[in-house]
Amino acid sequence: MRNLRVDGERLWQSLMTMAEIGATEKGGVRRLTLSDEDKASRDLFIEWCEAIGCTVKVDAMGNIFARRAGRDDDLPPVVIGSHLDSQPTGGKFDGAYGVLAGLEVLRTLDERAIATERPIEVVSWTNEEGARFSPAMLGSSVYAGVADLAYGHGRTDHDGRTVGDELERIGYRGRDDLSGRPLACYIEPHIEQGPILEAEEATIGVVTGGQGVAWYDVTVIGADAHAGPTPVPMRRDALLAAAAMVLRIRELAVAESPDGRSTVGEFRVEPGSRNTIPGKAVFTVDVRHPDRDALTRMDQGLNDLVMQVADAHGVEATIERIWLSDPITFDPDVVQAVRAGAELCGYSHRAIISGAGHDAFHLSTVCPTAMIFVPCKDGVSHNEAESAQPADLEAGCNVLLHAVLERSHA
Amino acid sequence: MRNLRVDGERLWQSLMTMAEIGATEKGGVRRLTLSDEDKASRDLFIEWCEAIGCTVKVDAMGNIFARRAGRDDDLPPVVIGSHLDSQPTGGKFDGAYGVLAGLEVLRTLDERAIATERPIEVVSWTNEEGARFSPAMLGSSVYAGVADLAYGHGRTDHDGRTVGDELERIGYRGRDDLSGRPLACYIEPHIEQGPILEAEEATIGVVTGGQGVAWYDVTVIGADAHAGPTPVPMRRDALLAAAAMVLRIRELAVAESPDGRSTVGEFRVEPGSRNTIPGKAVFTVDVRHPDRDALTRMDQGLNDLVMQVADAHGVEATIERIWLSDPITFDPDVVQAVRAGAELCGYSHRAIISGAGHDAFHLSTVCPTAMIFVPCKDGVSHNEAESAQPADLEAGCNVLLHAVLERSHA
Repeated sequence: MRNLRVDGERLWQSLMTMAEIGATEKGGVRRLTLSDEDKASRDLFIEWCEAIGCTVKVDAMGNIFARRAGRDDDLPPVVIGSHLDSQPTGGKFDGAYGVLAGLEVLRTLDERAIATERPIEVVSWTNEEGARFSPAMLGSSVYAGVADLAYGHGRTDHDGRTVGDELERIGYRGRDDLSGRPLACYIEPHIEQGPILEAEEATIGVVTGGQGVAWYDVTVIGADAHAGPTPVPMRRDALLAAAAMVLRIRELAVAESPDGRSTVGEFRVEPGSRNTIPGKAVFTVDVRHPDRDALTRMDQGLNDLVMQVADAHGVEATIERIWLSDPITFDPDVVQAVRAGAELCGYSHRAIISGAGHDAFHLSTVCPTAMIFVPCKDGVSHNEAESAQPADLEAGCNVLLHAVLERSHA
Repeated sequence: MRNLRVDGERLWQSLMTMAEIGATEKGGVRRLTLSDEDKASRDLFIEWCEAIGCTVKVDAMGNIFARRAGRDDDLPPVVIGSHLDSQPTGGKFDGAYGVLAGLEVLRTLDERAIATERPIEVVSWTNEEGARFSPAMLGSSVYAGVADLAYGHGRTDHDGRTVGDELERIGYRGRDDLSGRPLACYIEPHIEQGPILEAEEATIGVVTGGQGVAWYDVTVIGADAHAGPTPVPMRRDALLAAAAMVLRIRELAVAESPDGRSTVGEFRVEPGSRNTIPGKAVFTVDVRHPDRDALTRMDQGLNDLVMQVADAHGVEATIERIWLSDPITFDPDVVQAVRAGAELCGYSHRAIISGAGHDAFHLSTVCPTAMIFVPCKDGVSHNEAESAQPADLEAGCNVLLHAVLERSHA
């Protein structure tokens, strides 16, 4: 078993085939949650899983569980997972890698007719990205009981369509209740989405935990007025105030260097006409830090600066924290299984903190959890230029294989 | 004739009836150019004009000319005009006041069976606002030969629909060629859209000219990347750079106080996702000054600051000036006719420069031109809260009546 390896070429081909669904001209993918492209990627994943004899179940949030029976099928399963949805202009590997690495592990076991003590499940979670429906990691949050089903179904996109209705529309509002049962562990492979492994020439990131993340909605209300006759001192320009906030929001992260992150990702103004001073600006803020106290300082700093800038510009502002995910520490035993897998295969590795949020964060509240990172080019993700080396993806999958084998007999 | 006055109550009722077309919940109007609401307002205007015996013609840009015959109908006409389209969240008076004040003058003459030496025409120009199709004052620019018809028909909205196709769709791509003939003069009544008349308690603004206006499109290109793992120093955040530009654009106007104006009215980012650093920002700039040299300094300053900020933030930026309207000086004789009308009626008045652009600017290139301003509440326009006093609107219409009578015999 120590010499067992996955088929890296088959893994790569699966990734490339999946990337044809929602493929963009610039080489990325656009598979927004519960879109027709999302449905097509789900159908393909299920087809592949059933082809190797897996039993597929779908829960009410559309999370898909493909199960390979264990020798003792009553034991809690070892679970591998990630997601198939993407950012509006996302890459081929973010999410899809974890799901298809899980599939490749099952294919390798199937091909060699290797039985595992525990059952193994590969999960594809609904709406990890949060791009179409906020918040991110929605499917896993409902699975883990962090959010309830009514909340999950009630999330709306910018056009007012709900997750529940869109699940129904694409045929993925499932009937299987899979939450609450014991799980042996959860392991999520993922591209790093940061520059550290590449810069340090490490093949495997042994992920020991994750940054805390807070999401906010900010609304700035001034007064729209004609751009020509309204003297500068008499204006209440919502965009001007919002722009000043954007600059100060950057400083929040600088003040908590090197681990702090703050980002304004969505930003729009109303009425949005060339010759009208904007009376309204609406934007989002994403704040991250692996240390709880630092995250609390950034939260306070953000609230303060929004109010200070609004006062200085004579406009009104409201800020609402719509989501908070505490910093995460993964399970030492599962983390060790990942490290042992990297060592067994002879890959360079280092401990790393996840800068991005992942479904693994929610799973860590219900079972022992860890993650495996592999390098991606220039640390770029959430971008059509996202890229990863076949050899690194294969290495991460081999580490997954051995961590899963170890855990399936633990 | 010196005691002749318009019917202020009838004028007000016409304004209120017109404002029902595209009425918004907050008391404003939304009549975007060549929308169904625009068509409805055109139909109503024509119905009213034909009811008092006017001959209505429509040119290929959809500009509507309602003509009341003169005693010598071969003389060049006195022309009154403005527009019926609005901003996305506009007010009841911007544009509609000029058109309906013209109609009220015709109704008053009709009611009293007063013949004028020259014919009188009331024009409603297509796409004065420039909110749906850029640039503004499009119909009058084609009429005056400042732009050609192919250019006018080719302008597109954000959805790629053209002015030509939308004129066809609503049935206002007319067949009458009315450009090039001599006009006695053009007079445009309008709310001030600024705070000066109200602050100085003057009823009538005798408009002597207009600010120069330049419009720009700015595009900032950085790199989108995941908000979590990308350290602040490694980011190329297009929104951050664009926000810094917005703050510096304000300073352009401050440096040319008190007459300088600079406004960013449209602003959007891509891809526009909470947890993705924006790789692209696109915004518009509107720069104004009544002095040509100051406008040139602001143009240079804008180009410089965009490049400087882009360099400082490590992003690419392009800026394009898409429209330039030079400062305008109106015709002394027509300006004097307006002033004389205000004095005859006993209204307080003052000379004023137009801060906003108007169709009158284009007409001033083909015939003697002037404008009449009346106060609006708090100087607010391009806003649903736009408001004006019935007595002020009536006063402006009386000034128009007497200026027209004087010019129709000149």
